[in-house]
Amino acid sequence: MDPSTFVIGIDLGGTFIKGATLDANGTVIFEGRLGTEVVEGRKRVLQNLAQLIGDLRKMSPGRSLVGVGLGIPGAIDFKEGRIIQSPNFPGWDGFPIRSAVEETVGVPVIVENDANAAAVGEGWVGAARTLENFLLITLGTGVGGGLVLGGKLWYGESGKAGEIGHMQITPDGPPCGCGSRGCLEVYASWPALVRMAKEEWSRLRENGTVDSAPPPWKSAFEVAEAAGRHDPIAKAAFAEMAYYLGIGIANVSNLLDLNYFILSGGVSNALPLFETALRQEVARRAFGMTEAEALKRIEIRQALLGESAGMIGAAYLALQATQRFNV
Amino acid sequence: MDPSTFVIGIDLGGTFIKGATLDANGTVIFEGRLGTEVVEGRKRVLQNLAQLIGDLRKMSPGRSLVGVGLGIPGAIDFKEGRIIQSPNFPGWDGFPIRSAVEETVGVPVIVENDANAAAVGEGWVGAARTLENFLLITLGTGVGGGLVLGGKLWYGESGKAGEIGHMQITPDGPPCGCGSRGCLEVYASWPALVRMAKEEWSRLRENGTVDSAPPPWKSAFEVAEAAGRHDPIAKAAFAEMAYYLGIGIANVSNLLDLNYFILSGGVSNALPLFETALRQEVARRAFGMTEAEALKRIEIRQALLGESAGMIGAAYLALQATQRFNV
Repeated sequence: MDPSTFVIGIDLGGTFIKGATLDANGTVIFEGRLGTEVVEGRKRVLQNLAQLIGDLRKMSPGRSLVGVGLGIPGAIDFKEGRIIQSPNFPGWDGFPIRSAVEETVGVPVIVENDANAAAVGEGWVGAARTLENFLLITLGTGVGGGLVLGGKLWYGESGKAGEIGHMQITPDGPPCGCGSRGCLEVYASWPALVRMAKEEWSRLRENGTVDSAPPPWKSAFEVAEAAGRHDPIAKAAFAEMAYYLGIGIANVSNLLDLNYFILSGGVSNALPLFETALRQEVARRAFGMTEAEALKRIEIRQALLGESAGMIGAAYLALQATQRFNV
Repeated sequence: MDPSTFVIGIDLGGTFIKGATLDANGTVIFEGRLGTEVVEGRKRVLQNLAQLIGDLRKMSPGRSLVGVGLGIPGAIDFKEGRIIQSPNFPGWDGFPIRSAVEETVGVPVIVENDANAAAVGEGWVGAARTLENFLLITLGTGVGGGLVLGGKLWYGESGKAGEIGHMQITPDGPPCGCGSRGCLEVYASWPALVRMAKEEWSRLRENGTVDSAPPPWKSAFEVAEAAGRHDPIAKAAFAEMAYYLGIGIANVSNLLDLNYFILSGGVSNALPLFETALRQEVARRAFGMTEAEALKRIEIRQALLGESAGMIGAAYLALQATQRFNV
């Protein structure tokens, strides 16, 4: 890439639109973010997106933008540039977001599932750089996944593989935004963590064990902060999350004989609070090896790029534009 | 292969040892089987295996045996020729079965997980001949799987991929032979079907709905026969199996964006009895598409080679001996 050019990677999340300008080495030059405002409707979201891209462009005067990569949660048709179905963008099914954004920005746009984008990012300059086979799991507003097998993103029949967030962990569990029940997403996203803390408080109150007000936490960060202070309700919420996430990881490990799992997204920042419980649950349920072997063999790493993985991977995909990603 | 030679494929199951002689086109020439007699100990099982191979050899006088392929349930190290862990062969962990059998038969032996072998068989001359991506699920004494991605068996890090039988469907379900709980195997094997029928009878008796003796069924075939006569207890057992198997298939489809599932093993013969319920459950839980789309897109086929798939695939692997299978 010509040094007078740059690329923009966008993580179009359910809560925030995050964006960055990057050079060809994967170095982030500028970053920015705006609220997504999904409830204000599609027009507003697209305006916010255009504004963020415009702002990022202005930060690099005299250099030209060559492409934009969009990482979007849910089932994304990267070939057609459409949202197939995204629990975070209800009513957007089938929307040709690539062409809509291309019209506004005037450069080629690439769209990809946000977790696939994060996997690409971590494989490019992050925690998965040397790995041939891994699953990246994004723990955010929703739960997503990006699967790399034999050094390549595994797309499946229609480009929507990797959706561990919609693996059903309990047959009749809480309803999920996707229309099913008991998906991993209802146990390992940040809204799930907040909900499980409230449920734990309700249980304790029914038992007469607490008489305090319900926990005021509204984010994974707040629950994590409380758990760090050894708040028993917050700790119970993390324990519950570790239990279900452990089942999900064990299921993937048993099915694919996969040893590496990278956790990304907001909730992953709290990994030290639930890592031991998580690894033990995975080991307990790992097939064809003892718990001790599983603890040694199955590695769960925090993503190195944190919440930036998606936009960095999306930028990489924009950079590669016409060729598919090879780790 | 020289027409004066032949190969033997063996399916070393928990109940029966099934074997066949085949030519290079995958045509079965002779077949035979013996009880496995696992409870009589390893020595007896190996004697039975040697006897079956000897008997099959005698059926082709004047032609020479060039190799034997063994399909074995559980985690199998095909490179080292060992059983890593097999719920159907307790106490055999680490046993170098390939060299033990090679000593007896004097020709090269190949060992492979039985479901991988069945997938190879169905991909060679069976229901999956034209498919690039599919999961074969064996429903027998245990539940196994063989995963073909991009036209190749997916082995994973240590050759034991495809174990959908040990995907956990209910976090605290019935204990499984593998040491975990709520695995698909405890809902979709034939012993599971028999158990679920008995459980249904117990529930009805507690409700006072039945006062008959408990169902006498001891095999999937007997439960299927009763369901065919519209016995409500047998039908309930199949409905329960379809429910849990549907969750397992939906989970794999959501994770890998996989559309083709081939059912093999004894229980699969009863597919017409539970196909509608199974497909509906899968569609209900499929991610990123409507139920109608899922019903159209996700195909569940009965294996064409029936219970012979494992031994046919094992024979193919023996035939290929030094090169790995490519569908």
